[in-house]
Amino acid sequence: MTDHGAKGGEASEDGARSLIDRAFAILGTFQGGRVRQSLSDISRRTDLPIATCHRIVGRLTEWGALERDAEGRYNIGLRLWEVASLAPRSVGLQRLARPHMQDLYETTGYASHLAIREGLELVSIDRFQSPRRQVRRPQIGVRYPMHATAIGLVLLANAPADVRAEVLAGELEAFTPRTYTDPAVLERVLDDIRRTGYAVSDRQVDKVHISVAAPVRASDDSVVAAVSLALTEKDVDGKNMIHLVRLTAASISRTLDAAGFGRVES
Amino acid sequence: MTDHGAKGGEASEDGARSLIDRAFAILGTFQGGRVRQSLSDISRRTDLPIATCHRIVGRLTEWGALERDAEGRYNIGLRLWEVASLAPRSVGLQRLARPHMQDLYETTGYASHLAIREGLELVSIDRFQSPRRQVRRPQIGVRYPMHATAIGLVLLANAPADVRAEVLAGELEAFTPRTYTDPAVLERVLDDIRRTGYAVSDRQVDKVHISVAAPVRASDDSVVAAVSLALTEKDVDGKNMIHLVRLTAASISRTLDAAGFGRVES
Repeated sequence: MTDHGAKGGEASEDGARSLIDRAFAILGTFQGGRVRQSLSDISRRTDLPIATCHRIVGRLTEWGALERDAEGRYNIGLRLWEVASLAPRSVGLQRLARPHMQDLYETTGYASHLAIREGLELVSIDRFQSPRRQVRRPQIGVRYPMHATAIGLVLLANAPADVRAEVLAGELEAFTPRTYTDPAVLERVLDDIRRTGYAVSDRQVDKVHISVAAPVRASDDSVVAAVSLALTEKDVDGKNMIHLVRLTAASISRTLDAAGFGRVES
Repeated sequence: MTDHGAKGGEASEDGARSLIDRAFAILGTFQGGRVRQSLSDISRRTDLPIATCHRIVGRLTEWGALERDAEGRYNIGLRLWEVASLAPRSVGLQRLARPHMQDLYETTGYASHLAIREGLELVSIDRFQSPRRQVRRPQIGVRYPMHATAIGLVLLANAPADVRAEVLAGELEAFTPRTYTDPAVLERVLDDIRRTGYAVSDRQVDKVHISVAAPVRASDDSVVAAVSLALTEKDVDGKNMIHLVRLTAASISRTLDAAGFGRVES
């Protein structure tokens, strides 16, 4: 059954590749607003036959990576979330940063946001805001482009040169007339951000909000995250915001350093 | 290659079963305090040969379910956390409940906790506490027994009869001399909790904290979660805590109802 001679190893590796990859391709169709999907949704989005989907989804459901609702649609299961709660780059960072973000909110009432860079985008890790002014965005666990928000500009300014070059060469979507869409201008802005240690986004994401952001550093001084404050244009309080966000970023960096975050832990 | 006659379907199903199950058995070894593991840790904990582990871990790492650190150890990857951020029973609930928990904290300064039942245990979904009094427990995403905390007692009291019977028949660990360890006593306590609509845990988890909890209901009146407040014995403020936690549970229930949480969404 298993011995196909010299090619046996590779053949079984291909088998592993396709089945595990298919299982994760199925999980990967859950994104954006797609919280619940039918088998035929999943089949269409993965290009896998319904029968194959049914079989793999059955295994994923048995383990708890997916759950099936009364209408027969599937959503991400609690078990997967439990395992994911151990992800150091998101939950680990969130746990260390949250008391600082909460201090900032309690002191000022300003909304704060924590994000990291992943590839050419930012991923929103945590946010802290007034329960009376809940805004829908940024959504935690969701990716956004880096060139418009202050937090994204800080992450982009501190990204490796090849990442910066790729973002500058790509599409720079104009969310408002103020969004940086000229690569040459954006490049100068990024130079300034590295020099001054903070970024400002003045109605570059929407027509109302001004945000400022500063880098969070690991013990080796590398930028592992960024933190931002956002206010509406009429509430804005420029110098204060810049000082506050830099101070909060520094205090999170100190906590990461004390916890050995970003270093190899033993 | 694929045609083994009548048994063909089952054979390929077995193939799917073993590979996908092995992949998730590997992910399942990340739990408790095990944030980082070497290949040999994983191999030992899954009883899978190193070569098999290496192959499957390679696929998991390529997708981003696992990440490899500079020392060659593995941790849960950001990509898995991004997908898990769509789990409705945890993150969906958390998003709806958080403003209410924050209101409660801002009004009173009391620490609050949100949990759901999963099988015979509770799973901690969210907590809200003073940045100056960060306690380590409960940890979000972690399972705890139901018979000791107020939040667990509420979830247990409102669990199906077979779940209650199984917990009462199992080991009831004594965390302090006050923990309920007699099934007959615990059964009467659970009856009271269903009748009164709240639970109290008076130094039954540790020797310092008193907690009170109340059920959070979905639109069909089923208990989908519980919320609790915890204070140290010297700060305790009994009637006030009970009223506050019941009011918060009611306001979360209203928000769940308005959002259609727990119903089949369309």
